[in-house]
Amino acid sequence: MTMGKQNTATGERTAAADRVIAVRCHELAPVIGDLAANVALIDAAIADAMACGVRLLVLPELATSGYHLTPAEAAACALTPDADPFVRWAALMNPEAVLVLGFAEADGDRVFNSAAVVTRDGVQAVHRKTHLWDTEKEVFVPGDRPPPVVATPVGPLGVLICYELEFPELPRGLALRGAEVIAVPTNWPLLDRPPGEHAPEVVQAMAAARASGVAIACCDRRGDERGTRWTEGTTVIGTDGWLIGQKDESGRLDVMLTIAADRHRISARNHVLHDRRPELYRW
Amino acid sequence: MTMGKQNTATGERTAAADRVIAVRCHELAPVIGDLAANVALIDAAIADAMACGVRLLVLPELATSGYHLTPAEAAACALTPDADPFVRWAALMNPEAVLVLGFAEADGDRVFNSAAVVTRDGVQAVHRKTHLWDTEKEVFVPGDRPPPVVATPVGPLGVLICYELEFPELPRGLALRGAEVIAVPTNWPLLDRPPGEHAPEVVQAMAAARASGVAIACCDRRGDERGTRWTEGTTVIGTDGWLIGQKDESGRLDVMLTIAADRHRISARNHVLHDRRPELYRW
Repeated sequence: MTMGKQNTATGERTAAADRVIAVRCHELAPVIGDLAANVALIDAAIADAMACGVRLLVLPELATSGYHLTPAEAAACALTPDADPFVRWAALMNPEAVLVLGFAEADGDRVFNSAAVVTRDGVQAVHRKTHLWDTEKEVFVPGDRPPPVVATPVGPLGVLICYELEFPELPRGLALRGAEVIAVPTNWPLLDRPPGEHAPEVVQAMAAARASGVAIACCDRRGDERGTRWTEGTTVIGTDGWLIGQKDESGRLDVMLTIAADRHRISARNHVLHDRRPELYRW
Repeated sequence: MTMGKQNTATGERTAAADRVIAVRCHELAPVIGDLAANVALIDAAIADAMACGVRLLVLPELATSGYHLTPAEAAACALTPDADPFVRWAALMNPEAVLVLGFAEADGDRVFNSAAVVTRDGVQAVHRKTHLWDTEKEVFVPGDRPPPVVATPVGPLGVLICYELEFPELPRGLALRGAEVIAVPTNWPLLDRPPGEHAPEVVQAMAAARASGVAIACCDRRGDERGTRWTEGTTVIGTDGWLIGQKDESGRLDVMLTIAADRHRISARNHVLHDRRPELYRW
């Protein structure tokens, strides 16, 4: 693996208290409704990442199922977090590594658009998407818990799923609750945008990262599916709000992500979190 | 005046309920500490904008005073909102036009970094900057009131000053309180950024606009001052989050800004404000 150098405008940081995390987002192309095929794709992605020394691996939203599911299809390939694939994925992980992936989650007859945080010790957390996009509302039940900040071997990790990232309250809240990195499994349908601009979801992510001094790792998907093209917008954003690294042809974006101890301090007298004045915020 | 066409990826909207506002941001170069010179600059900018049919004119932060002031200099050129220049500026305005400009505001022996909303009828509102940037903390007293949404001839108008825009809570709150446009007088010191990227403050503004379906008009300043170069990043952003128009050589950015009736509805089943779930937001 060729880990990219942190490509920020402010240059590399070397303070002793800074941490560096080998992050990979692997932009897979799930096969719609084919659980076995998708599990095999994920198996291979984990094995490859672990062989490369990746510490944080992020895979797409609904990686086990594909996206444009009917309710019956979603139910047919939904998993519980104690299902066999999760047991095997945990076993594939290196001891200090963390996996975040999206999956269709079964809970009785309800199906959630969920993301799991998995380590060698098993599933550490499951987040059920709380803000559903468009036709997802016909297929999935919305989650009713705030997105989590999970203590992991790569540090405090927040999780958001796709459209959730577009609510500035959510990444802000995760950063205030201590998240240093936010992993975002996504399926971004390709939208028109003016020439030269990033995808709009990437703009949201850049702003969220800079506003709170938090890194954001978005793993999109690829592969056309039932007429939808995807942005293929997989992006890792540093705590200063700038993009890091270049995706390779196979859809792997590898970066060495720096979590600087002073990432919230943006001038001699300013701190992006301490400068907040919640008593003045009106909704 | 050549008003630019709305240059958005989604094309022009023509629904009957949409509103179009002729907006100008005029990027002035105030003279540090020279109130008379700056008042003359502002007089000329207002007269020119009114002759061109501008409905919303936004001028920079601290347009009356310049930026890198000592406390004594700030006090010496600070104005109260009933001072003569405001009376004259109101008189220069067309009946249906609105001016937003930054000024150093005197209140007893305190000085605020403020913005005024002015119409033909006089000063409609004054907002005192609540989140101060770096050395401003040595010169100005922070405001203690939330930024306002002001009923104006161009519709409900929010006001933020420079660094305030980088707190996602503030534009979000203004949009939720009904603002259709947010006017942002700024003085953005030039920061390093990767090639091809917008200034980081512009990224924040784009994200804030798209997240809440609100237009944002940022008027920066120009002219070196005590060793500081400015971004000269004057930008108008449509309710879909994309930049509109091109600044001319004299620093005037003129756009026809569309406030579409359906601007909050971003899919058949999604509305950027109604989709919020505040009960899940944790800080």
